[in-house]
Amino acid sequence: MADAVKTAEMVRNAVGRLVPSVVNGREEVAFPGVDEYRPSGKKAAPAVRSNADYPKNGDKRVPDLLTALKKCGLSDGMTISSHHHLRDGDRVALEALQLAASLGVKDLRWFPSASFPCHAPVIDLMERGVVHHIEGSMNGPLGDYCSHGKMRGHGVLRSHGGRWQAIQDGEVHVDIAVIAAPTADLFGNANGVQGKSACGGLGFALADSMYADKVIVVTDNLVPFPCVPWQIQGNNVDYVVEAPSIGDPSKIVSGTTQITRSPDRLKIAQMVAQFLKVTGIMRDGFSFQAGAGGIALAFVDYLRGYMREAGVKARFVRGGSTKYLVEMLQEGLMDYILDGQTFDLDGVRSMGTDARHIMTSPFTSYNFHGKGNIASQVDAVVLGATEVDVNFNGNVVTHSDGRLLHGIGGWQNCLYAGCTILALPSFRDRIPVIVDEVTTLTGPGELIDVIVTERGIAINPRRQDLLDAVKGSALPVRPIEEIKDEVEKICGGKPQKARLTDEPVAVVKWVDGTVLDTIWKVEE
Amino acid sequence: MADAVKTAEMVRNAVGRLVPSVVNGREEVAFPGVDEYRPSGKKAAPAVRSNADYPKNGDKRVPDLLTALKKCGLSDGMTISSHHHLRDGDRVALEALQLAASLGVKDLRWFPSASFPCHAPVIDLMERGVVHHIEGSMNGPLGDYCSHGKMRGHGVLRSHGGRWQAIQDGEVHVDIAVIAAPTADLFGNANGVQGKSACGGLGFALADSMYADKVIVVTDNLVPFPCVPWQIQGNNVDYVVEAPSIGDPSKIVSGTTQITRSPDRLKIAQMVAQFLKVTGIMRDGFSFQAGAGGIALAFVDYLRGYMREAGVKARFVRGGSTKYLVEMLQEGLMDYILDGQTFDLDGVRSMGTDARHIMTSPFTSYNFHGKGNIASQVDAVVLGATEVDVNFNGNVVTHSDGRLLHGIGGWQNCLYAGCTILALPSFRDRIPVIVDEVTTLTGPGELIDVIVTERGIAINPRRQDLLDAVKGSALPVRPIEEIKDEVEKICGGKPQKARLTDEPVAVVKWVDGTVLDTIWKVEE
Repeated sequence: MADAVKTAEMVRNAVGRLVPSVVNGREEVAFPGVDEYRPSGKKAAPAVRSNADYPKNGDKRVPDLLTALKKCGLSDGMTISSHHHLRDGDRVALEALQLAASLGVKDLRWFPSASFPCHAPVIDLMERGVVHHIEGSMNGPLGDYCSHGKMRGHGVLRSHGGRWQAIQDGEVHVDIAVIAAPTADLFGNANGVQGKSACGGLGFALADSMYADKVIVVTDNLVPFPCVPWQIQGNNVDYVVEAPSIGDPSKIVSGTTQITRSPDRLKIAQMVAQFLKVTGIMRDGFSFQAGAGGIALAFVDYLRGYMREAGVKARFVRGGSTKYLVEMLQEGLMDYILDGQTFDLDGVRSMGTDARHIMTSPFTSYNFHGKGNIASQVDAVVLGATEVDVNFNGNVVTHSDGRLLHGIGGWQNCLYAGCTILALPSFRDRIPVIVDEVTTLTGPGELIDVIVTERGIAINPRRQDLLDAVKGSALPVRPIEEIKDEVEKICGGKPQKARLTDEPVAVVKWVDGTVLDTIWKVEE
Repeated sequence: MADAVKTAEMVRNAVGRLVPSVVNGREEVAFPGVDEYRPSGKKAAPAVRSNADYPKNGDKRVPDLLTALKKCGLSDGMTISSHHHLRDGDRVALEALQLAASLGVKDLRWFPSASFPCHAPVIDLMERGVVHHIEGSMNGPLGDYCSHGKMRGHGVLRSHGGRWQAIQDGEVHVDIAVIAAPTADLFGNANGVQGKSACGGLGFALADSMYADKVIVVTDNLVPFPCVPWQIQGNNVDYVVEAPSIGDPSKIVSGTTQITRSPDRLKIAQMVAQFLKVTGIMRDGFSFQAGAGGIALAFVDYLRGYMREAGVKARFVRGGSTKYLVEMLQEGLMDYILDGQTFDLDGVRSMGTDARHIMTSPFTSYNFHGKGNIASQVDAVVLGATEVDVNFNGNVVTHSDGRLLHGIGGWQNCLYAGCTILALPSFRDRIPVIVDEVTTLTGPGELIDVIVTERGIAINPRRQDLLDAVKGSALPVRPIEEIKDEVEKICGGKPQKARLTDEPVAVVKWVDGTVLDTIWKVEE
């Protein structure tokens, strides 16, 4: 009977994936196809406040985070949000949840933009009933915990743009936003480019600051008003807390980011750069985005060489910024870096001092429920994946054993670029990356144009223009099935099918809030 | 009977002013006293949009403003908004309304942040029924037209912060915002610091861009995406129009702003600066705001001298920026200019190139229905007025003959500064400026601390701290009644009482949206 009920609640969406129609008690729309869904209704509307209830001198400081949480009226069942600009060095989000525990609060929904291994103690808080479940990217141990069906609610995985969309559309109401700020003033203006815990932009916290009922800024670098730039505006902030340290600088940003040394991965990176050159995407005034992974960094380095040779200048490059992008900006190879998060110290320094290195937010860059965004205006984007399949579908959240180990990040949002390239090794640990069908669908194949592996380049048959553009070139363009067959021979067959139960433990949302796929509990 | 009905609709507010309880068909709250009103409910919520309905390549251009207005569904009774950063040089707002006329549209509400003499042809559009009435500052001929009871609806005068509050709180819903942009890209990102029509910031258009149903950006300087900085975000914009010219540069900003040469006004300016020095308000890390009038500029120049002498540096200065503030920034006499509008070319250049010269918006600076604002954190503000009375009440919108000739600007919002100083000549054209009771109450006396005239300084008895601070100084501190009596002797008596009817033609809103006073039709 229990199984029958479970089955009744599942529906098959437009791409054939079985998804729950109700997630954490909320009715959901099954993915109806790319660009098929149209939202209705109005944006979430925060309560109107009055300056009469805030200190005229702007001083919103309270002695500590515990006091701030109490003043915010923290209570059972609330939603607490945090951002992940401090990455694995964050000390604030966990502290907020542990303080909630000390107050005896139960059943919180934690709504981080992403969680990292440093947040593993939240498992204990879930075991104790303090945290009911997590909605947000779960990298590593928390994702594994969710995969084993131990979380009381469903995990909900959203892209960076999807998280903005969910808050903006009122899908997720944040009761209390706790914003770790590398620099802030007593009014709550805050930025991430100054201070000992500098992390770059604070864009992932922007929606929280605008839409949450109560907003707490926690800083370890309080400066006199005004804190400039103010990416977080004090006009949205309720309380300011000074703390000795908001994070471990060595884990917030890398001192330096490293290009891959693997010959195969260097080869992939070079082929991607060659692809942009051969197809003419690399031209004066073009734009691209690449992440901070080893292949992406190497790609940027190769492309820089080609751009220099050809005398080509990009109009803008979307970051994840690193010293490689910063050097290109300084060298005059682009007009602007439009930066969503900053990966190394060179990136942080550049954002803090160079007016051409622009802080963006998920609103400007990625939100799909606006009047357009930046991501769809990017000429080419270079991304990774854990799996791709012969229909060019991509997976970035689970491994082929079905375990949830990664967040979506901006990956889904970036698929709207003019040319979406997945650059990846054809197998990892002798497990093929190109498969018949992705374990978890994170990106529909119709938005993925090119797959570049060390064994050749597969172009989506839907992109006849790209197939035409590479004709006659030396690029090793091959059908994706051919590459897949070759990889299976090397690895001794297809990857083992994931051993999964029929119990949904999490869902993958598409950029428009519809449910794209389900993550199933792994068999013990 | 008609009069009886009119009387029945009037109520007396907490400061004794008779105000209508219904304005343009909307129920209003009578001013209940400073900081007494508490808003309820939620902010206005714009409709959720989808990127799927906007061009993926970001190109939102349409051939002309007429096409854009048609695509926005312009129709009878709509509210059209515009901003006044182009001041008396603006060509866009009038064109939009005249195009509406050419389409046969009727009964529009025009909602400018301010109107100027260049918009006088809107009188013809009101006569023809195209524009029903204006809600927004009416400087000069449009105010005079309203004063004579010729507008079909009530004028509604709001401060800059009050206009944000009204949009944010849903009091005023804008159907179509028409934003004149000195620089923009095809996505609708826009700024005012570049281009032949550069005007400085575009903050007065920000709320419109965020809350209007449809947003049109009109520019005479289209640049490749991204237009940086983007004070107006393309993510909020529907259509972009290229026009040969959005305004007359000679009337948008002054080439140079001029300090007063009147000996009396120079004396006032010097006394204000001395007051700040004597009271210790001028100290390291302090802040102030002054406008761009002749007295205010002279005050800034005197203060600069005192700051140099004393080796004092301000933390920030709020502008209206001019070359005087820019020079002080460059000289190291302040850390930041926090600028709401830019009055001369030096100001525009500085905002465009100096990272310490910050664009603000009415949200950060003035909105009273937020979690605080900048205005109340300013140590001292120096303002003008058309009249002040013996209870320190101020009037900035009407003359003593009752005619509406000026907007409120940020004046009301600035009254929340630590020390509010009105600097004004004690009479103009032989008409006393200090009166028994202001013709139109624009600012309650309890928020006005000091009145500086060429005949002495009056300190509000509520500010014992300031009275103590000037004790023993050479400053000519006198009771306000004494100054008033002296002025009346010089001018041959009190000003003639305004000859007004009992017909309300406009209302003055307080910063919280409540009705502070009524402007009455003048007798013919």
